[in-house]
Amino acid sequence: MATHLSHAMQQTGFTLVQVYNRSEEAAKTLANSLHCRHTTQIQDITTEADVYILSIKDDALAQCIEQLPMGSGLYLHTAGSVSIEVFTPKTARCGVLYPVQTFSKERNLNFSSIPICIETANPADTDLLEQIAQRLSKKVVHLSSEKRKHLHLAAVFACNFSNHMYTLAAEIAEDAGVDWSLLQPLIKETAAKVENMPPLEAQTGPAVRYDRKVIKKQVDLLATPSLKKMYRLLSLSIKKYAGLEP
Amino acid sequence: MATHLSHAMQQTGFTLVQVYNRSEEAAKTLANSLHCRHTTQIQDITTEADVYILSIKDDALAQCIEQLPMGSGLYLHTAGSVSIEVFTPKTARCGVLYPVQTFSKERNLNFSSIPICIETANPADTDLLEQIAQRLSKKVVHLSSEKRKHLHLAAVFACNFSNHMYTLAAEIAEDAGVDWSLLQPLIKETAAKVENMPPLEAQTGPAVRYDRKVIKKQVDLLATPSLKKMYRLLSLSIKKYAGLEP
Repeated sequence: MATHLSHAMQQTGFTLVQVYNRSEEAAKTLANSLHCRHTTQIQDITTEADVYILSIKDDALAQCIEQLPMGSGLYLHTAGSVSIEVFTPKTARCGVLYPVQTFSKERNLNFSSIPICIETANPADTDLLEQIAQRLSKKVVHLSSEKRKHLHLAAVFACNFSNHMYTLAAEIAEDAGVDWSLLQPLIKETAAKVENMPPLEAQTGPAVRYDRKVIKKQVDLLATPSLKKMYRLLSLSIKKYAGLEP
Repeated sequence: MATHLSHAMQQTGFTLVQVYNRSEEAAKTLANSLHCRHTTQIQDITTEADVYILSIKDDALAQCIEQLPMGSGLYLHTAGSVSIEVFTPKTARCGVLYPVQTFSKERNLNFSSIPICIETANPADTDLLEQIAQRLSKKVVHLSSEKRKHLHLAAVFACNFSNHMYTLAAEIAEDAGVDWSLLQPLIKETAAKVENMPPLEAQTGPAVRYDRKVIKKQVDLLATPSLKKMYRLLSLSIKKYAGLEP
């Protein structure tokens, strides 16, 4: 996320001052691509920037903030699941800039279509954070820490869990000697459908009409008890959401 | 599927002779859009076509074939889970044309990018079926009934089950008063990622590093026992596939 976000910021006209990373190589690589300074020492992080963005693992944030030398600028984190209050022992000029997206270094992303959820502790900082976010994205939303936590949880289902369904699908196909890439247009269309249709209405397949004969045949076909269990649990859940009797 | 397939066939130069559907309105609507005849009576289905395509529910196929007046042309079905042998009591000139896609009437689809899996019982029919499929799609694959059954099962995971993850995600967001459409770019990117990357490598999130603290916090946040159960089962499965210790 730090790589994507800092490049998107530079491309939209921000001046990047310094990169911090515990790894010399990671810090240097990113700083070089941004033409700015870097450090691996938390005590050497500048205190003279206007804005500081902490884009690190959710569970490392509190400890990092504790050790951070503090300036008078605006401190932001980018974590979906962490409250804005993580900053309050150290500064009141704080906020959150949470891009709702999955980031991998290998993928190029168009930041302007990524929704950004923002929150500030101090109303005087709202304009500044809004300006930053709006320069990066067309879709900026104010969201409290409490709501952001739920959105982040929803994102685990929408992204991490749906990707795991792709993993299981690929395994089932490949174990039968079938090239799993035959499923790629289906995966793409399934995701594209819910851009115009609530997912509950887009649901298809044997479970939504709870066709017991097909379901039994498919469970029998699955190779392992854990796949059978997964298939049954998901089919029952789909049935429940379809409003069929238990 | 019948609507999409017949229109794609007409657009690629085939002459559609007749539409059969038990519902007069459905038969008429499709026949009118194709400028061809229609019938609601199975005994009135022509026996003079070169090719017959049975695009009906998997579990209705056997009964429909039993009642079908037979001509000397090639009979095809489009069902992922049904063996080619469903035809053998009635004709040896039979085959399968299975497009690996999810179809809804409201969505326009580019048929040429949909993989089509084909199978014929009679080697003399292979060329004809290959020609039909290749006119419709750039991606035509020969697949036995046995392999197709597994691909169809894999498609349930890739499409039906991943769509259910979107349903749960939308519910979690909306229940917290957050517009679920904020997740749409994430859903799209998650699907796009696996076009270039095996899904196992694309996996992200708390489960893949089995971060117990985050997982416990998220389970606590979920509103119902069934969502908690789903979250735990999926996280454990992701962990298993990541090769972490049990």
